[in-house]
Amino acid sequence: MKASPLFSLALGLGLLAATPVVVHASSPPLPVEAAAKKAAPITRIDPTFWWVGMKNPKLQLLVHGPGIAASQVELAKYEGVTMDSFQKLESPNYLLVNLTISPSAKPGKLKLLFKGTKKVAYEYELRQRTTPGDKTKVQGLTQQDFIYFLMPDRFSNGDPKNDFVQGMRAPKAARDSMYSRHGGDLKGLENHFDYLKELGATAVWMTPVTENDMPKASYHGYALTDYYNVDRRYGTTEEYKQFVDNAHRNGLKVVHDVVLNHMGSKNYLFLDQPAKDWFNQWPGFTRSNYNSSALNDPYGSQRDRDLYNKGWFDTTMPDVNQSNPLVATYLIQSFLWWVEYTGLDAYRIDTYPYSDPKFLMQWGQALNEEFPQLFKFGEAWVGSTAQQAFFARNVFQPVDGFKSNLESVFDFQSQGAIHDALRGDNGNMTRLYEALQGDWMYEDATRNVTFLDNHDMSRFYSVIGEDFARYKMGIAWLLTSRGIPQLYYGTEVLMKNFSNPDGKVREDFPGGWPGDKQNYFTAAGRTGQAGEAFNYVSKLAQYRKTHPVLATGKLMQFIPQDGVYTYFRYNEQGEAVMVMLNGSKDEKTVDGTRFAERTGGFSTGTEITTGTALSNLSSFRIPAHTAWVVELKK
Amino acid sequence: MKASPLFSLALGLGLLAATPVVVHASSPPLPVEAAAKKAAPITRIDPTFWWVGMKNPKLQLLVHGPGIAASQVELAKYEGVTMDSFQKLESPNYLLVNLTISPSAKPGKLKLLFKGTKKVAYEYELRQRTTPGDKTKVQGLTQQDFIYFLMPDRFSNGDPKNDFVQGMRAPKAARDSMYSRHGGDLKGLENHFDYLKELGATAVWMTPVTENDMPKASYHGYALTDYYNVDRRYGTTEEYKQFVDNAHRNGLKVVHDVVLNHMGSKNYLFLDQPAKDWFNQWPGFTRSNYNSSALNDPYGSQRDRDLYNKGWFDTTMPDVNQSNPLVATYLIQSFLWWVEYTGLDAYRIDTYPYSDPKFLMQWGQALNEEFPQLFKFGEAWVGSTAQQAFFARNVFQPVDGFKSNLESVFDFQSQGAIHDALRGDNGNMTRLYEALQGDWMYEDATRNVTFLDNHDMSRFYSVIGEDFARYKMGIAWLLTSRGIPQLYYGTEVLMKNFSNPDGKVREDFPGGWPGDKQNYFTAAGRTGQAGEAFNYVSKLAQYRKTHPVLATGKLMQFIPQDGVYTYFRYNEQGEAVMVMLNGSKDEKTVDGTRFAERTGGFSTGTEITTGTALSNLSSFRIPAHTAWVVELKK
Repeated sequence: MKASPLFSLALGLGLLAATPVVVHASSPPLPVEAAAKKAAPITRIDPTFWWVGMKNPKLQLLVHGPGIAASQVELAKYEGVTMDSFQKLESPNYLLVNLTISPSAKPGKLKLLFKGTKKVAYEYELRQRTTPGDKTKVQGLTQQDFIYFLMPDRFSNGDPKNDFVQGMRAPKAARDSMYSRHGGDLKGLENHFDYLKELGATAVWMTPVTENDMPKASYHGYALTDYYNVDRRYGTTEEYKQFVDNAHRNGLKVVHDVVLNHMGSKNYLFLDQPAKDWFNQWPGFTRSNYNSSALNDPYGSQRDRDLYNKGWFDTTMPDVNQSNPLVATYLIQSFLWWVEYTGLDAYRIDTYPYSDPKFLMQWGQALNEEFPQLFKFGEAWVGSTAQQAFFARNVFQPVDGFKSNLESVFDFQSQGAIHDALRGDNGNMTRLYEALQGDWMYEDATRNVTFLDNHDMSRFYSVIGEDFARYKMGIAWLLTSRGIPQLYYGTEVLMKNFSNPDGKVREDFPGGWPGDKQNYFTAAGRTGQAGEAFNYVSKLAQYRKTHPVLATGKLMQFIPQDGVYTYFRYNEQGEAVMVMLNGSKDEKTVDGTRFAERTGGFSTGTEITTGTALSNLSSFRIPAHTAWVVELKK
Repeated sequence: MKASPLFSLALGLGLLAATPVVVHASSPPLPVEAAAKKAAPITRIDPTFWWVGMKNPKLQLLVHGPGIAASQVELAKYEGVTMDSFQKLESPNYLLVNLTISPSAKPGKLKLLFKGTKKVAYEYELRQRTTPGDKTKVQGLTQQDFIYFLMPDRFSNGDPKNDFVQGMRAPKAARDSMYSRHGGDLKGLENHFDYLKELGATAVWMTPVTENDMPKASYHGYALTDYYNVDRRYGTTEEYKQFVDNAHRNGLKVVHDVVLNHMGSKNYLFLDQPAKDWFNQWPGFTRSNYNSSALNDPYGSQRDRDLYNKGWFDTTMPDVNQSNPLVATYLIQSFLWWVEYTGLDAYRIDTYPYSDPKFLMQWGQALNEEFPQLFKFGEAWVGSTAQQAFFARNVFQPVDGFKSNLESVFDFQSQGAIHDALRGDNGNMTRLYEALQGDWMYEDATRNVTFLDNHDMSRFYSVIGEDFARYKMGIAWLLTSRGIPQLYYGTEVLMKNFSNPDGKVREDFPGGWPGDKQNYFTAAGRTGQAGEAFNYVSKLAQYRKTHPVLATGKLMQFIPQDGVYTYFRYNEQGEAVMVMLNGSKDEKTVDGTRFAERTGGFSTGTEITTGTALSNLSSFRIPAHTAWVVELKK
């Protein structure tokens, strides 16, 4: 294991608040830099620091250093903190130190003494917890939000200094390759907070910003090489904390993308494995079957289950064994750490069901206990509403002891349905209705995250044949149906392409780089239909912001008839919006008396994107491939 | 209302054990016939008779007679029986009499006195209950059964005397019209019990045998005109009881087909309605939307729910209002009556979810209390496993107070899946796997009734393009997968056709009528592939009978790969059968080591329909479109 570079990196970032110090008997601690140069027997401790005031008083430190396992550990007296034990692992280069931090403990620095062939002292920092009581932090998400999802490497390059980062395996941005880094960064995104606000977004989700020091294709972020640091090509870890603060000041929440299932093969924990059983090991590389079905199939084979949960996602992504309690603790602590450190608002969990089911429950419970306001939503890309609901809080009895405690999942069912509804001359509107019908299986499906496309699939505008009328239908549905809508960057300006290879749907946002010919960040730059699209999204999103009935009102949907799907958002205050989607290629006459339950008390309406007045609610003539979003009036 | 004919009919059948008698003050009762001729003020009482020894001591009699509502009712002293009350309805021609029958009551005849403008006495019979303790009665169904489903009008004409029945609205059989009665009857079926046994069936299900005295298309049986009598064109009610006994003697269980949702418009209860609220009334004829989705859609409209539950199934089928407790009691009593009277083994419930949800729970509970061994399975023709499981006993929390207590439903999901798996050159085997994957939602999906086709859909052999190789795959799947298999009459001899109109898939069984040119009831008559098909079904069904592992063994299925779906039935006794289905047009090589969990301990196998030996369980070469059913050997 290349311990030194990693350690230098940590120091270089000014991030490792915990500072290893070599102690010579009875001599005062050396300055950090000198100590590091001299011996560096401790390369890192995870978590890098911690807090007093956490509900769970237990803390398990993973200490890494060459030969450190041969050491005895002592904790200098510290009011309210005790060391319960320390323990070896298979590798000689790790020690676990188990601490208990009582509620009365004060912030400060613990002095840990490692006595092996040398004596090494380490000052481990305990900070004061700040998230509780600070309303600007950990705000969670609700239906009132509108998530803008982007790949930070592909959105905007705001800091050319981090386009080359010494010491990384792919140090240099290269915009001409779809598999390379393009140079986008945190600063680039912050430069365009105004754009997001103009669009009407209230939250931003980036693909993972944590370090991916992989030799190839690291730009996507899902091959984590450090559980405690941001990838320097985006900015420093400290800058990410500032980014979250800045977003909050701008009225934007931050969704942090995390991976529990696997890590990058260049993670120090894989290069120098604490123990074999920290990973799901196979005789040879064994790929996941990518199929969750066997998990809860009463007739499923153990082999199919193991392939799913323990098979590797990719050759470069070792599968983490979360059924090992030590691994579980390591992971859980790291995800507590990020919330407390940055005040982020929500976790988006990649490949959620691939992880050990019991671990997922523990992980969720630990986060719920410390951060009840944190919102968590998982990617469970499965084929039915029941299977999707299985991975969220639901109305099911536990299966094999598993009962998900996750607030929310991506709504792949309605996503598939909106595509089916908008493909072809006469789309399947019933499927769109049915996608919501199954919501009875969720504890609360209004928390589901709805979307038209994402970084793993063909772009929406291409899927629907670049038909602008149908595009507007999709946007209208996204911003008026139940759930928390998510828009993939560029869909608001008609970015297109099919996802084979993935890079085709992960292109740079026009205007994000100095010298870009097109600049879609400005109204003037959004030429042609791109501007029209942006305005349509923005109009609806801003209306949604100022008219909570559309975001938080109850939903009532009517079984589609003759290719027309109609639903209402309404509230106790007597507000109501009618949404009518004609998925067919013909104009349709719709009998409005069917909807008397919801139109009663109203006499007219205004289509909010066009201002068109509807004077008769008992009969409608809706043009082909049209979405109406109608504010009802008394 | 034509009361007299109805009454004569009841007498003619010798069925109404309860006998109405006009009482002249202090004179002895007149003989029945004389009384009927004289005044017939009581045309019928439902239930027609009852039993002592029922767990529920309550009994509610519906008394019908012109002007009967004006009467006071008295019950002559009878040990253990009290009359709690009697009550009028809207119609002057009905009275309800509420009785309590204590556990100590003995069989005998209750004397009811109706005092109106005339005094009418009625002797109401209480019989001794016999089903408890009689193992030959009410046997229920399990996975060990194999149901043969037929339309009794179209199977075999065993009694030419009932081809013309005086007094019925369609008195005469007319074989040349697909909408008319063809003359099949109970006797015809009994004549061919040997055929069913040779095939390997263990249970027989007929479309409803209860009276359908409708002017048109009454042959299907779903427009009930009398809740207490068998249609005379099949035989008498008494003969049906004997039919059940005869079936039991022949090792065949009897499934009785019932309709809770609607009745025929010529039912006396509709022609002379006890009260308007016995039916779901609409301003004009209003058809059901045939869509259960709104029922449990959290966003469903009341209108869509009402259309489903209260809309009429057809112009000739008034929708019964089971939310009226009096109606609920009437229906429940009638379905208790049939079980106790005949000893039938199972109820197949037509259009199950169309009925009032709360009523369905009451109905199921009442039957469960009196007949815990009775098996009940419902037709819930819906689009997803979750929706199907919603109408069976399941793992869901109640929705709007509804939690189904039904043992079983038809498995429309696997039925759709087997069609998809066998259509086209390369069928979708994954869908077949997934159809069972969702079984985690059921309390016990092994009780589900599986099938390839029925009277409402195109015949299986036609759907798969009359391809005999794929036919055998379907049969193999049906008789080896989990659940209780049901075969539609004629599918075993390759009867074909598409279901538009329905009559096309409801043709007469060849050989069922005297003079038929073809006779598929005999081996000699089953010429060509029809014989081969029969033998294939029979071979598997008989093997299934003698090898319980195939019927009751556990199931383990493996995620299909490369168009091949493999599953196992196995038990604790070390028996195992491997089923391998190749849905593709090419021969496939299958890595058997994938199945080590189930093949471990076995070294060879024999394909049971061909006798082919398989000497190597670690690799297979399975031909295109082939089903293997392999008994594994040590």
